Amino acid sequence: MAHSGRRPGDSGTRERIATSAREAFGELGFDGATIRLVAARAGVDPALVHHYFGTKQRLFLSVMNLPFDIGLIKAELLAPGLPGVGERLIRFFLSVWDEQPSVRPILTGIVRSAATDPDAASLLRDFLGRQGLFQLVGAIAPDRPELRAVLVGSQIIGLAMGRYIVGIEPLASADREELVAAMGPPIERYLTGDLGLP
Amino acid sequence: MAHSGRRPGDSGTRERIATSAREAFGELGFDGATIRLVAARAGVDPALVHHYFGTKQRLFLSVMNLPFDIGLIKAELLAPGLPGVGERLIRFFLSVWDEQPSVRPILTGIVRSAATDPDAASLLRDFLGRQGLFQLVGAIAPDRPELRAVLVGSQIIGLAMGRYIVGIEPLASADREELVAAMGPPIERYLTGDLGLP
Repeated sequence: MAHSGRRPGDSGTRERIATSAREAFGELGFDGATIRLVAARAGVDPALVHHYFGTKQRLFLSVMNLPFDIGLIKAELLAPGLPGVGERLIRFFLSVWDEQPSVRPILTGIVRSAATDPDAASLLRDFLGRQGLFQLVGAIAPDRPELRAVLVGSQIIGLAMGRYIVGIEPLASADREELVAAMGPPIERYLTGDLGLP
Repeated sequence: MAHSGRRPGDSGTRERIATSAREAFGELGFDGATIRLVAARAGVDPALVHHYFGTKQRLFLSVMNLPFDIGLIKAELLAPGLPGVGERLIRFFLSVWDEQPSVRPILTGIVRSAATDPDAASLLRDFLGRQGLFQLVGAIAPDRPELRAVLVGSQIIGLAMGRYIVGIEPLASADREELVAAMGPPIERYLTGDLGLP
């Protein structure tokens, strides 16, 4: 009912708040990003943030959606065939993070917040599970698709933590193609190789 | 000077505060663990926490020391020779985390806090750098020891995030020897293999 009073321009304000929220969650994580800070960055009153998005928890869940079409990504990664899929997956991940400034705070914010916030942890589980990575892994895994998905996910999360969030050198400034070469084969083993399970 | 007034029993109080602090940082991370909460868990006044440890930042740095003798660990991991060192490293890490209840909150607290706190990020960089993992990697790496150390570190941090902090299944409940078998060879490639660098 509150929305029936929207004026022209409201969607611009809402989108400005959403952008500020993504940036704040990306920089500070869920605990550190306050509604007051998001409001100040968007140049609006904190009450307006609550008006559009409700609680901080709902704000987080509303704005931290990854704009990926998993089906499309899967098709692209698999089009050249299975060999090299590990390298292509790492390259895809690194190029999204490095080159899509609108997506980067969402990824950073989810990983950063997942360390302490249950909602963010749940988003991260979705991202690695049936809503995300599992759709790729399930299509190519010879066996144990769930385990393979989390093995790949663990390497990607660790890469994100080290390169983008904690900033550990020389991971943070490593050349992208060096990381693709170094991490591609281990990722490919997790995806399709013999895991040597006991 | 403040310490000249210590009574017998003070060291017990100090250790109780340190234990409470480790647990609070481990569960909630640096931002979430307050001095007030640490004091309440230790059954003391918050002023006493400040008296013994100073600021929250100094408390964190005082209590989050990993009680590892890196030289000893390195000798044990390398004693059987290089082959299998990746499996032994992952097994060592998992057994410390699973079986040493006094160390686990320190590891969890550092990784969890590093996502948002600069001091914790710095501790994590030390743990992967010259103070820690690098001492092992530097001894066996055929080349690029710094890069190899952070590649190994990224996989270990991702495993910690997935298995212990975010709790992603089936990583969280996977059998230890399954993870050793699955992750050992990739870790060994990072340590001593051909990284295929361009």
